[in-house]
Amino acid sequence: MLRRISILGTGLLGASAGLALRAAGFTGSITGWNRGSAGGSTALNAGAIDALAADPVAAAQEADLILLAMPIYATLEMMDRLAPVLTPAQLVTDVGSTKAEICAHAEKLYNSPITAGFLPGHPMAGKERGGAELGEATLFQNTIWIFTDSGGESRSSTSAALATEWRQWVARIGARTMDLAPERHDELVAWVSHLPQFLSTALSALILEEMGNAPELKWVGGRALRETTRLGASPYSMWRDIALTNSEPITRALHALELRLQHLRENLKTPELRDEFERANKFRKDLPTS
Amino acid sequence: MLRRISILGTGLLGASAGLALRAAGFTGSITGWNRGSAGGSTALNAGAIDALAADPVAAAQEADLILLAMPIYATLEMMDRLAPVLTPAQLVTDVGSTKAEICAHAEKLYNSPITAGFLPGHPMAGKERGGAELGEATLFQNTIWIFTDSGGESRSSTSAALATEWRQWVARIGARTMDLAPERHDELVAWVSHLPQFLSTALSALILEEMGNAPELKWVGGRALRETTRLGASPYSMWRDIALTNSEPITRALHALELRLQHLRENLKTPELRDEFERANKFRKDLPTS
Repeated sequence: MLRRISILGTGLLGASAGLALRAAGFTGSITGWNRGSAGGSTALNAGAIDALAADPVAAAQEADLILLAMPIYATLEMMDRLAPVLTPAQLVTDVGSTKAEICAHAEKLYNSPITAGFLPGHPMAGKERGGAELGEATLFQNTIWIFTDSGGESRSSTSAALATEWRQWVARIGARTMDLAPERHDELVAWVSHLPQFLSTALSALILEEMGNAPELKWVGGRALRETTRLGASPYSMWRDIALTNSEPITRALHALELRLQHLRENLKTPELRDEFERANKFRKDLPTS
Repeated sequence: MLRRISILGTGLLGASAGLALRAAGFTGSITGWNRGSAGGSTALNAGAIDALAADPVAAAQEADLILLAMPIYATLEMMDRLAPVLTPAQLVTDVGSTKAEICAHAEKLYNSPITAGFLPGHPMAGKERGGAELGEATLFQNTIWIFTDSGGESRSSTSAALATEWRQWVARIGARTMDLAPERHDELVAWVSHLPQFLSTALSALILEEMGNAPELKWVGGRALRETTRLGASPYSMWRDIALTNSEPITRALHALELRLQHLRENLKTPELRDEFERANKFRKDLPTS
């Protein structure tokens, strides 16, 4: 049933999705659109899409499934533009990093018997930089693709069938699917994704200032420094919308880490330091290594 | 002149040094000693050492150069034991992660015309776990090996020549040497090595507690979580001495990070967040990637 896909936003995730679908045997059409023309051409030349559209709305109208792969506010805006022109025979899905606002928006505009369906998704995959040129068919392999589908009961039967089919494609491109409530998703990613990012940004900025008078000294840092600051390379443009749409869970996570660092600092010379290392060892013992 | 080396402590760093020296063409003898006999046998079987000694003092007496590759307090204790029995024709060097206490100790016991010399060193290489079985000939390639040689003026000419020769071997096994004052070294590593470690320990322990009721949820975390918590696997035994011998610089670094996280948290919705991301981007731009 799923023969025509439109990928709106052919950055890292959108281009990777196109490449991955092709590698997994999808033989239908994949049309792409990108706000910047360079990213669209790159995706086209890489074979992530087989046609580049000039107008996202027209491209969406011709597809069975529309994958929104853009920042959160751009996703919300595109949801507004598409809702009035799509039909119950179509499904929109997305890859946005926070889900509460997108799901609330979807409940208003989609998933009724007379509108298109909307399946909110979030692949836990990415890199510290974006862009179609970094797209890879294998980006989603051995990752988790979360769905926060809280509004699908009154969806049309066609869009419900498309949602089932999209989940199958997600599995075929190598991701494990997981279902969570939108609020639980946002709380969880605050801990395992947003906290590592903001921590890495703060650490990178702090060491920049500390080493400012002797920049060659950062060469001294080995793998420990490189890994804990890698996400410091992430651009603000990728994180602004996340900070704005998930600020309460992020605030709680950052505050908890501040208190935890203070506790460790006050116990550098006590047996509590050993206990904290043992808790950390326990956490890592069962963490998947790739 | 350097024909006989004794490596006291054949864990990750000691075993790797032996393997690296052999790979770089050192043809003299390498005798090893290890507190635990398993680590010694592993190093012997791997070819990191060509003889395993039962007594560290006897092994040291027969060497031109003694490499101490053990935790900091064990290093200080071994310096005490060796000083009375070594001669000005010998050089002791080490790989300890903090240098102020070791250098102060060396000034009292070594580096006079009638004692052995002591060249304090610190290779910026390691893994989140130790042990001879993880030893690699390539561990020091493209790393920095710091020397904090503040007491070498009255060293005997033989031990001074051995110090020069050891620096050449360090370069031959692939490390770049750098000279720093001991206090500056300790301050610097507090930022680029100890802070990433304690941060990673605190983050791992915190997320363990947050995910305690649903441990499968940590699967959601991708590379960001894996990298920022990798050092959480480090054992307390590797870090206890570092925390005790470098507590003031570590305390300053941890406190500065706490304040930085608080600042970021208070600015999640302001333009200051963009500025912090830009500082972090700047830091990463010139950081060596491997």
